[in-house]
Amino acid sequence: MTKHNIILQPSGSRGQIDEGMSVRSAARDLGVEIESICAENATCGKCMVLIEEGRFEKYNIDSKREHLSPVSAEEAAYFARRPKLLKDKGWEVGQVRLSCQSKICGDVLINVPEESRGNKQIVRKSASNRAIEVKPSVRKYLVSMTPPTLERPIADWERLAKGLETSMALVRGAEAKLPRWYDFTVDYQCLRGLSAILRSSPTQKGGNWNVTVSVWQDKEVIEVQAGYVEDSYGAAVDIGSTTVALYLCNLRTGEMLAAESEMNPQIVYGEDVMSRIQYAIENKDGLEKLHKAIISTLNKLLKQAAHEAKIKTSEILEMVLVGNSTMHHVLLNLHPKDLGLAPFVPAIHRSMDIKARELGLHINPSGNIHVLPTIASFVGADTSAMIVAEEPHKQDENWLLIDVGTNAELVLGNRKRLVCTSTPTGPALEGAHVEYGMRAAPGAMERIVIDEKTLEPKYKVIGVDGWNTDHVEFIGKVKGICGSAIIDGVAELFRAGIVDSRGKFKQGLESKRIRKGESGWEYVIAWAEETSIGRDIPMTQQDVRQIQLAKAALFTAARTLLKRFGLQDPDKVILAGGFGSFIDKEKAMLIGLIPDCVLDNVYAVGNAAGDGARIALLNIEKRNEIDEVTRKVERFELPTDPEFQNQFMLATSFPHMSEPFPHIAHLIPNRVADPMAKNFMSK
Amino acid sequence: MTKHNIILQPSGSRGQIDEGMSVRSAARDLGVEIESICAENATCGKCMVLIEEGRFEKYNIDSKREHLSPVSAEEAAYFARRPKLLKDKGWEVGQVRLSCQSKICGDVLINVPEESRGNKQIVRKSASNRAIEVKPSVRKYLVSMTPPTLERPIADWERLAKGLETSMALVRGAEAKLPRWYDFTVDYQCLRGLSAILRSSPTQKGGNWNVTVSVWQDKEVIEVQAGYVEDSYGAAVDIGSTTVALYLCNLRTGEMLAAESEMNPQIVYGEDVMSRIQYAIENKDGLEKLHKAIISTLNKLLKQAAHEAKIKTSEILEMVLVGNSTMHHVLLNLHPKDLGLAPFVPAIHRSMDIKARELGLHINPSGNIHVLPTIASFVGADTSAMIVAEEPHKQDENWLLIDVGTNAELVLGNRKRLVCTSTPTGPALEGAHVEYGMRAAPGAMERIVIDEKTLEPKYKVIGVDGWNTDHVEFIGKVKGICGSAIIDGVAELFRAGIVDSRGKFKQGLESKRIRKGESGWEYVIAWAEETSIGRDIPMTQQDVRQIQLAKAALFTAARTLLKRFGLQDPDKVILAGGFGSFIDKEKAMLIGLIPDCVLDNVYAVGNAAGDGARIALLNIEKRNEIDEVTRKVERFELPTDPEFQNQFMLATSFPHMSEPFPHIAHLIPNRVADPMAKNFMSK
Repeated sequence: MTKHNIILQPSGSRGQIDEGMSVRSAARDLGVEIESICAENATCGKCMVLIEEGRFEKYNIDSKREHLSPVSAEEAAYFARRPKLLKDKGWEVGQVRLSCQSKICGDVLINVPEESRGNKQIVRKSASNRAIEVKPSVRKYLVSMTPPTLERPIADWERLAKGLETSMALVRGAEAKLPRWYDFTVDYQCLRGLSAILRSSPTQKGGNWNVTVSVWQDKEVIEVQAGYVEDSYGAAVDIGSTTVALYLCNLRTGEMLAAESEMNPQIVYGEDVMSRIQYAIENKDGLEKLHKAIISTLNKLLKQAAHEAKIKTSEILEMVLVGNSTMHHVLLNLHPKDLGLAPFVPAIHRSMDIKARELGLHINPSGNIHVLPTIASFVGADTSAMIVAEEPHKQDENWLLIDVGTNAELVLGNRKRLVCTSTPTGPALEGAHVEYGMRAAPGAMERIVIDEKTLEPKYKVIGVDGWNTDHVEFIGKVKGICGSAIIDGVAELFRAGIVDSRGKFKQGLESKRIRKGESGWEYVIAWAEETSIGRDIPMTQQDVRQIQLAKAALFTAARTLLKRFGLQDPDKVILAGGFGSFIDKEKAMLIGLIPDCVLDNVYAVGNAAGDGARIALLNIEKRNEIDEVTRKVERFELPTDPEFQNQFMLATSFPHMSEPFPHIAHLIPNRVADPMAKNFMSK
Repeated sequence: MTKHNIILQPSGSRGQIDEGMSVRSAARDLGVEIESICAENATCGKCMVLIEEGRFEKYNIDSKREHLSPVSAEEAAYFARRPKLLKDKGWEVGQVRLSCQSKICGDVLINVPEESRGNKQIVRKSASNRAIEVKPSVRKYLVSMTPPTLERPIADWERLAKGLETSMALVRGAEAKLPRWYDFTVDYQCLRGLSAILRSSPTQKGGNWNVTVSVWQDKEVIEVQAGYVEDSYGAAVDIGSTTVALYLCNLRTGEMLAAESEMNPQIVYGEDVMSRIQYAIENKDGLEKLHKAIISTLNKLLKQAAHEAKIKTSEILEMVLVGNSTMHHVLLNLHPKDLGLAPFVPAIHRSMDIKARELGLHINPSGNIHVLPTIASFVGADTSAMIVAEEPHKQDENWLLIDVGTNAELVLGNRKRLVCTSTPTGPALEGAHVEYGMRAAPGAMERIVIDEKTLEPKYKVIGVDGWNTDHVEFIGKVKGICGSAIIDGVAELFRAGIVDSRGKFKQGLESKRIRKGESGWEYVIAWAEETSIGRDIPMTQQDVRQIQLAKAALFTAARTLLKRFGLQDPDKVILAGGFGSFIDKEKAMLIGLIPDCVLDNVYAVGNAAGDGARIALLNIEKRNEIDEVTRKVERFELPTDPEFQNQFMLATSFPHMSEPFPHIAHLIPNRVADPMAKNFMSK
């Protein structure tokens, strides 16, 4: 067999290829995957390549266009239908080729443009900046069949399955372990429409039946569409107790086409998970109401996202859902009772795939709903998704992941071992139960700094540029204090020496801002005339206490986890969730919210749960990975730790009663050991 | 390790067993499976054995009861709860033991009673008399769990799955390839009830949670019941165009508990499959009506059978359904249009498993409906079931299986190759389109003999003993002629020389019974006074013609199949279906309905489709087998055979124009070649 030298750019892969092999097959042999959907039918055009002409000294080859088989009639027809594409790109036919149609007959240098490359990737921007390959669980294949005759009246399904076996092998290559035709299954509802679709499908090349088949997990056919259809869509959803966020993605390219969010409608039945569990326990139809509420919101978001992306909801072929264990149970119509009562047991940990129609979710009825695994009653599928997004289980270093909300979930470990726990932190960190606390919205203070000499504050407000001291536009704008400014405020009160390490307002300081309010001492950050509510906005002794309780719970959980793991400090601290994205890392450390470490090793990664859901949607291998990881992760229950209460007391101090905080030591005003600290809670 | 001699009766298995091993494990080691459901928990009592005491010279052992560990408290408690059992059997505790509890500590001879033996069998009485092992797809396991605690709050499902892994290994033995706990899946609707059932389950032995878990295909949990539950049930259904028959079976023992049948309600939309297909094509909601009719009849039969067996329909955990391709499609709500229009293509061949709730069948909603594979448009899942029942694919000889109805399906072959075809035979063989034809019911003639000298007939009637000529009770009883008597009648008219080999009434015969009726010549079998309808009952020229057409179609199909297969004659002819059970084999051969062969090699096997459905219900391996067989069976379409019409003409003669029938030659009156026969149809 004559062989020729083939070089592929930009990868630089090269090798000797048998004459007559298609460029696409040659590329695969050289380790370069070129996309194709149409099973090398010159239909999809996904496999376009550019032929470089000339003598390439560097490679010692003389590449010519005629070193490939001539442009075939089908290929010419494909390009003839796309004059705009050729014009926009400045390509001429012959220079651009369909790699499935062009066969090697001489040395040639081939450029594989970005859009033709197989194994598409998306990039996760996070502590572990990395590319994630698009390996969806649903893939489309163009299948061409010979219509049935009296001589070959084999059934529609078997005809399709045999064609699918052929197409799949062409698209995916012989090396992939793919099923034989008789191993394919078909969703029952999809089967019901099959015969009519096959017979209504456009014919080409002498009467072939042409359909596009969507296959789930290389096994189950879930949709058959007439003709050639390029894209499938999927939705990733993070069901938070407060907000439901849905991301609509193209399953082939990984591209995000729409992001929609809504308030979680269950809020009318209870603000936090415990009150919703209570509601479900106390009302006969409580679970049903909670369940229906979330299903209907999901259907609304699906509709909005499909509208935004200009597709039909029936084109959405899969959903991946995450949420805390309560949201997970309510979504699946599983009673959350035992999540809220000791010994706090979920109904199920493992991930599940449930038909959309079984849950009443309005995507394609044959599509599947994949729900990520839960880890414990208070470490839910959202934590699993955070692990998917950050991959602590692939690190050599020890990472501490913290998702802060009303409840904080913590995961610690490395590639060898992962441990997790959770702790209630109360709503203070999110701005609730703080006198002038509010959600991060226009009018909320987001930053506070207090001058330690003058004891005068300055602040920033969401929706206005700069500091309030810089210009007058601030006047009348402030409404309250959001989570990040609450951390700032408490940290600054401590740093400026207004409150002591036990969180108590000091007596006898010279400032008109420090005063005795209705509920005790307080420090006024904004005077009434600066606000839109016409009242002074202070931080009170009570606010400081709330933060102390929350941060002590979080810190103690982290410390207990580290101790059980046998570690003093984590190598990296990763803060997930909206809260983590906005807080000042240094201030958080100063009040002892997070363990001490080099500030550069503290990362805020935003909505890791949502990102994890999206990654699991786009890459099926990540699902298998997280199933395995969650089976192995060790769960620690803090209340069962005999030292917990003791440690919690010590942790209420700023930054901590008995731990050195070397990395923020320079900010601590005057450190004193205080024997009274232990009595903090009994006061 | 000390070893002891163990002998098991009645199998005679023997061997050396380690001291301390349980009798049940020892038996398994010696190749004797003893039943158990409760995972060796002394709960189910399925593993009872009898200990034989004394010196057994033959085996050279001295067996004593105390060669086993003493009766345990649990074991004693088990027997104490069953005084009646001990009294009825005449057993005393110590002589009878639970083999899971008793451990070997000396030589012992053990009798395993019938009911304790594992691998239960059912016997198929047919051409292939054989025992079929009960290997159901749904099995029950008693699972005992430690309730969750704060220290071990693992989820309900995972707790159950781990317990199930343990129980399954105990019951099935280490050798069976069984899944790990994380490989089990759970039906979504079953999961919804799980947590409540676990918490309501009776506890024993210090607070264990005890539930009985039903597992489908060793993988999917489809039911969890509180406490110990012994039996599961399944239903096998044969959906005939005319009659729907349902068999309710115990999935553990294989026992049939009820058999119910009903007319197929689709009859109001068309008597045969073609007219029902037509109805579905012509009416917008035609398919929906046909589908709903059969589903509601199946639900009615399920209810009746459950009532008969004194169980709840929710205890039925699986159904296996068979039927011709049209019945199959309508059951699955697949449009049968393409079954009835050239090129006659089914929607699907392969077997399917569909959740009962998806089809609206009222068994346990998490149970599965297994539908056997179809082979062609007119060779349906009923033929697959016939193959399951008769197993031609396991024979060295060449078997010809024929299922006769309005349509006849034929399967020919051996372990190396199977071919099949079908042919419309018309309703004549079932008694329709014959002037006085009727179904086999009281009042129908079932046998006819004509004296070749006097040309006088005698007959038998369903519901009355003996021949009509024997006694007078017959008078006023006869209503019509059923299928078997129609074959008899035509054969006897031919044998007695009243009609010639071309089926024409001969002229000038001396009998008052032969006369010219309204539609031509006829022969009166019963005079008006003998009947309950007050009219003479004749067989007419037209009746003979109808039978000629039917038998020619069937014979030609058989001959074509044999020819394609390269055979002159089959080794055995197997007639399935009610029709085959009642006809006189010799007469059938005399008119050339079936190919000539030794009469002893013609078998009537009754409702093979129903039996096949039941076998597939009780033995999952048979399902895999038939899936494989149907993928390989070769389908011949008769209309595409150029010789078919020609052969058909020759086959209209009695027994055949151009074939020797040596085995019934002595019955043929005076054989003459008749050149006019070819023109029979054009007359």
